[in-house]
Amino acid sequence: MRKMLLLATSLCVITPLFAADAPPVPYPQGYRQWVHVKSMTIQPGHALYDAFGGIHHLYANRQAQQGYRSGRFADGSVIVFDLLESRIADNSLQEGARKVLGVMHKDSRKYKGTGGWGFEGFKGDSRTERAVGHNATTACFQCHTAQQGRDYVFSSFRP
Amino acid sequence: MRKMLLLATSLCVITPLFAADAPPVPYPQGYRQWVHVKSMTIQPGHALYDAFGGIHHLYANRQAQQGYRSGRFADGSVIVFDLLESRIADNSLQEGARKVLGVMHKDSRKYKGTGGWGFEGFKGDSRTERAVGHNATTACFQCHTAQQGRDYVFSSFRP
Repeated sequence: MRKMLLLATSLCVITPLFAADAPPVPYPQGYRQWVHVKSMTIQPGHALYDAFGGIHHLYANRQAQQGYRSGRFADGSVIVFDLLESRIADNSLQEGARKVLGVMHKDSRKYKGTGGWGFEGFKGDSRTERAVGHNATTACFQCHTAQQGRDYVFSSFRP
Repeated sequence: MRKMLLLATSLCVITPLFAADAPPVPYPQGYRQWVHVKSMTIQPGHALYDAFGGIHHLYANRQAQQGYRSGRFADGSVIVFDLLESRIADNSLQEGARKVLGVMHKDSRKYKGTGGWGFEGFKGDSRTERAVGHNATTACFQCHTAQQGRDYVFSSFRP
């Protein structure tokens, strides 16, 4: 019994450390060759404008494409949220500079504390400057818990 | 000489028929798995709003991806112009119903009269209802001639 209590205490201490110290999410090499899932433009006045204002495109690697079909994303699934400035020119909205490259990377072991997903944001065109780091829980996962029934994913594939 | 004149006359008669009777451009099977080139939203007030109002995404097959890199598109290159309604909702622009699926299909022999490109538009989600048909020269190519130096292609790949 004492052993079990000790074990339980250890787990309680260790679990948050696991979440905070989750391994860094890798930069999604070659994602511009992946399948385009859908797009959306978030404009001034939208609740998420400060964080996500502009046009974003979602891309899925092979495993994530299967996840969109089945509703469950296998380990190795990667979804990219490619956020660009939306520039108004001549009554059109054109893609501008990259603001941030958001990444969801499924690894149910590494990212156990955040629904099996690692979350990261790479600033602008950088492959190393990280906007999320150890703040995945508050910066990303808290919102994504609303989608628990859909494996924490908001988007759907547009046919 | 008489033979040559006859031949020349025949060519003059036949050439326009070749252009008008170019083989139909095939529906681009599987294009949603192709690489996403770029996107743009055309809004009311834009000169092309009546024809192209909404959000469009461009997709390229393997040969066309190479064409974007080299500036010359080999036979077999296909570029898709996927035009969707742009719906305003909660200070965001969201993708709506498909309006038309535009296609450029490179075959320098079949589509000699229009820069080596076959042009077509499939209405909405239809794979058979054609919006361009034999009117490729006036409906598409006349505008694209402005891009002769770029193999008649307006778009560039957004990295």
